[in-house]
Amino acid sequence: LKNICQFSDQLPKWKDKKSTLLIFDQYLLKIPRIMKWITQFPNRYAVKSGEGLKEIGQLPNHVENLLKYISVTQKVLVMGGGSVGDFGGFVASILKRGIAVEQMPTTWLAALDSSHGGKTAMNVGGYKNQVGTYHFPTKVWIVKSVLQSQPEQRLFEASGEFMKTALIGGEKLLKAMQNWNWQKGQIRWSDLKDFIDVKYQIVKKDPFEKKGIRHQLNLGHTMGHVWEAHCQVPHGLAVFHGLLFDLAWSVQKKMMSAERSVDLMDEMPWSYIWDRQFQNQLDQTLYGLSESKIKSYLLKDKKNKDGMIQFTFVMRPGKVVIREVHIDEILREYRRQQRALQELYETL
Amino acid sequence: LKNICQFSDQLPKWKDKKSTLLIFDQYLLKIPRIMKWITQFPNRYAVKSGEGLKEIGQLPNHVENLLKYISVTQKVLVMGGGSVGDFGGFVASILKRGIAVEQMPTTWLAALDSSHGGKTAMNVGGYKNQVGTYHFPTKVWIVKSVLQSQPEQRLFEASGEFMKTALIGGEKLLKAMQNWNWQKGQIRWSDLKDFIDVKYQIVKKDPFEKKGIRHQLNLGHTMGHVWEAHCQVPHGLAVFHGLLFDLAWSVQKKMMSAERSVDLMDEMPWSYIWDRQFQNQLDQTLYGLSESKIKSYLLKDKKNKDGMIQFTFVMRPGKVVIREVHIDEILREYRRQQRALQELYETL
Repeated sequence: LKNICQFSDQLPKWKDKKSTLLIFDQYLLKIPRIMKWITQFPNRYAVKSGEGLKEIGQLPNHVENLLKYISVTQKVLVMGGGSVGDFGGFVASILKRGIAVEQMPTTWLAALDSSHGGKTAMNVGGYKNQVGTYHFPTKVWIVKSVLQSQPEQRLFEASGEFMKTALIGGEKLLKAMQNWNWQKGQIRWSDLKDFIDVKYQIVKKDPFEKKGIRHQLNLGHTMGHVWEAHCQVPHGLAVFHGLLFDLAWSVQKKMMSAERSVDLMDEMPWSYIWDRQFQNQLDQTLYGLSESKIKSYLLKDKKNKDGMIQFTFVMRPGKVVIREVHIDEILREYRRQQRALQELYETL
Repeated sequence: LKNICQFSDQLPKWKDKKSTLLIFDQYLLKIPRIMKWITQFPNRYAVKSGEGLKEIGQLPNHVENLLKYISVTQKVLVMGGGSVGDFGGFVASILKRGIAVEQMPTTWLAALDSSHGGKTAMNVGGYKNQVGTYHFPTKVWIVKSVLQSQPEQRLFEASGEFMKTALIGGEKLLKAMQNWNWQKGQIRWSDLKDFIDVKYQIVKKDPFEKKGIRHQLNLGHTMGHVWEAHCQVPHGLAVFHGLLFDLAWSVQKKMMSAERSVDLMDEMPWSYIWDRQFQNQLDQTLYGLSESKIKSYLLKDKKNKDGMIQFTFVMRPGKVVIREVHIDEILREYRRQQRALQELYETL
């Protein structure tokens, strides 16, 4: 696995237009400059982004449509955010037993995370990522002008994954995040490479998730996924609170000192992003779930074996550890944090 | 890629029944001994074999059903012929991004060919194998009592693949075939290992079909697939006539002498299998296709690039060669054989 990222300021000149099938988020047609670039591809397929695109019930229809293009093209270029990337990567991996795929992420979240990892995914009856393949892109195009044209709330939605990457990568990345323009939804461009590199280094060592190394990237995701599924919050926000959950538990388990955790909280950019009232409501939602809902979701976790889950804790920025915990332990910690939060709100 | 074949006379004792999901051809329930073995698995999923099973339109429904079992099992055992193996292998390859799969072929065709190669496949709108993955089985169970219980016409349907394997493997295998009991649909058990080994040796060298080596196994399949698609003949029979096509062309191209080809024909077991009247009708069908039908099918060939196709010729048993030919050359050869056949029938 090589670093196959191609950074550029503008949309690249494309040589083999005829032999490329472009699968793209139809929303991009609203941006004239990008629309012009897209329409130069004679073989293109517009999709509506979102989790609905990933529903397997729609797959037969998409596959039938896409096959018409595949006989005249040699590779697929996928242009969009996470859902389009997951979908495009999956269909590329199964059409004719696998066609080369290149990714051009259009959201911060996809540019940082999902476009590189080779994990493709589809949903089944509303359950996320139950079906998928490993199909590594042969190239990932990181285009400044495309990424900067996304709505500002996209950075807010990616905040969880950036924070996760910084916690895994270390202090330098945490500090970098403080200088970004969160209100305008823009990051400092030169930082992006450092963040992506953290992900690459981990994926490279364990591309097929066989060695437990790649599991580090699951930081914030165990409870994050539960909340995403049951509380209608975007992925990045769910992961952000998943990180807070993991940090609090790491302190409780004495893997991290309470002081360090408080320092970390202070360094986080979240206070710039949303207001207290919003946070109050969100906390009520996140910590108002029934235990049976949490439990049934965790039992569906791909990594669950006999109720045991590999859980990622933080010792300090740059040092995360994986411990096997029982689902009941997660529930106990959830209750503990629920009480602590209640007490906190009562003292405010 | 190791030889992961496990030969046995009887159905094996199964240790991890609870953690295995058995996907099986429902037809097997009609054989009491096999039914008894199947029903010991608490997690089992019956399917109706045939190309309909492989239609992608049914996939969402199957996936939704199968997911219920997957959370409590660790691997999939697929028991059936080619279509069940293709289907079972495909779903195992995409559920939770890939679950270990073991195959237990129940037809000669699957035991010889499809169960080992790691190629999974689904059909799209009646077009065969348009979608699929590479997902190698961790074990292939070759069980004598299971294979011997299949109806005798299954050997007839596998004859093409056996003949192909013998042409690739060499004289020894061709001779072996003459001693089988074609009427009763039984082969000499000790020969099966030799035939399977020919396939393994080739797959091992080129598992993902990147080096052109595995393409040898396509002998008889270029026209075979056309006939299978347009003439409603079973795969083995279509491939058998595809081999005759390839042999005749090899002679025409002076890669093989006419004498050797006549000797080969005489050695073939086909005269035991069907009668002249049947063959006469079949020839009319196979050589009565319109050129546009053949051309449009060949253009859909996965291996087609700008109208060029890698075609497998035979120099002698044990020695096949691959040459790039244009689709128009295949059509020309089809017309030539059409005329030759017509002349032959006129002289009879």
